[in-house]
Amino acid sequence: MANRYFLADLPAPGRHALPEDLAHHLGRVLRARVGDAVRLGDGRGGTAQATVAAIDRRGCFVDVSDVIHEPPPPCALTLAFAVPRLQRVEWLLEHGTEVGVASFQPIWTHRTRPTEARADRWDRIVAAAAGQCDRAWLPTVQPGCELAELLAQPGLPPHRFVARADGDAPAPTAPGKALLLVGPEGGFTAEELAAIEQAGCRGVRLGRHVLRTETAALIGAAVLLLG
Amino acid sequence: MANRYFLADLPAPGRHALPEDLAHHLGRVLRARVGDAVRLGDGRGGTAQATVAAIDRRGCFVDVSDVIHEPPPPCALTLAFAVPRLQRVEWLLEHGTEVGVASFQPIWTHRTRPTEARADRWDRIVAAAAGQCDRAWLPTVQPGCELAELLAQPGLPPHRFVARADGDAPAPTAPGKALLLVGPEGGFTAEELAAIEQAGCRGVRLGRHVLRTETAALIGAAVLLLG
Repeated sequence: MANRYFLADLPAPGRHALPEDLAHHLGRVLRARVGDAVRLGDGRGGTAQATVAAIDRRGCFVDVSDVIHEPPPPCALTLAFAVPRLQRVEWLLEHGTEVGVASFQPIWTHRTRPTEARADRWDRIVAAAAGQCDRAWLPTVQPGCELAELLAQPGLPPHRFVARADGDAPAPTAPGKALLLVGPEGGFTAEELAAIEQAGCRGVRLGRHVLRTETAALIGAAVLLLG
Repeated sequence: MANRYFLADLPAPGRHALPEDLAHHLGRVLRARVGDAVRLGDGRGGTAQATVAAIDRRGCFVDVSDVIHEPPPPCALTLAFAVPRLQRVEWLLEHGTEVGVASFQPIWTHRTRPTEARADRWDRIVAAAAGQCDRAWLPTVQPGCELAELLAQPGLPPHRFVARADGDAPAPTAPGKALLLVGPEGGFTAEELAAIEQAGCRGVRLGRHVLRTETAALIGAAVLLLG
């Protein structure tokens, strides 16, 4: 059983029917029983504590006791990564959600070209991982964009980093909004790196070994968020 | 093509035949050609730069130019982890090798009982990952042992940590030998935690979310080694 299930809107205290898909999942897949505790979240900081009051083939009713709201975490990290093979993107979404990435930004670079978008599937993966690790704030998965397009956006996060072999050892970020850029296998091109530097990104070095894109992205996020 | 291939012993400068399995891999799987560069390692800091001099069905000869030796990395981290499902162990071995773990120590705890040992398979996974990320020092995979047995070992690393929800934010370790303990799903028992504390392990907190064993182990290693 996951630690949290997400609904578009949280119910108020009292008795409520759960949406059909969640009722099915709890009843038929997990075989939940009357009295089982269920935590519901809206993915925007809201959490409702609930108990299964009735569950059968027709649906699932829960009694919601408490509803609380948490502020967003102190560091909101946008992880912008050159898209590796799709399986590895999913790995990164899952584990990046666990370590606390706020926003995933797939980017296209000179060495990585656009692949099929998987918006629905990626959103589901992130929600499942967030439920598993009990995140009150759901991360977002942005539509893919060109690196140049990202760098030209107004309002980039004030703390900006790029993973590179010749960077400094990473320091934990100050609380606030941060951006970490991670290049493709083979790295960013010299032109891309020049544009990245010009956009005010500081190079951070993730150890002495050659990391794959998705490992560098996950590890970089972890070190910035938790180091 | 991996960045490095491991041999039990490094050849001296000059022309040498590669062992049959490596010759087969280079010739038949990777279709290497005369003139291709190949890096050979002994996994104990030694690296030989070589060039393919002849390659056909009968074997592969390389010309070794340079042999260098690197000292071990400044921080030798032993990652002791309650064993999750085998597939997840392999994930951890692969990515833990990338971030620089020196020694993997599977442990049995109250909530995780011994599973089949996979020593050969685990060694192969670690060597493949170390080749991919170009590590000069191969990590070791220790045979599994009881948590109590590990804690009773003389000569435990001087810097000792345990991942726990109520620990401090992790600080990068001082250079030298360190140990990180990571418990099973459901955590260490209170008795186990008491023994761990008595063994001088400081609690470190890996963020605010519930991490799976293998994610906690990887992220904890990364933060201690790279943070």
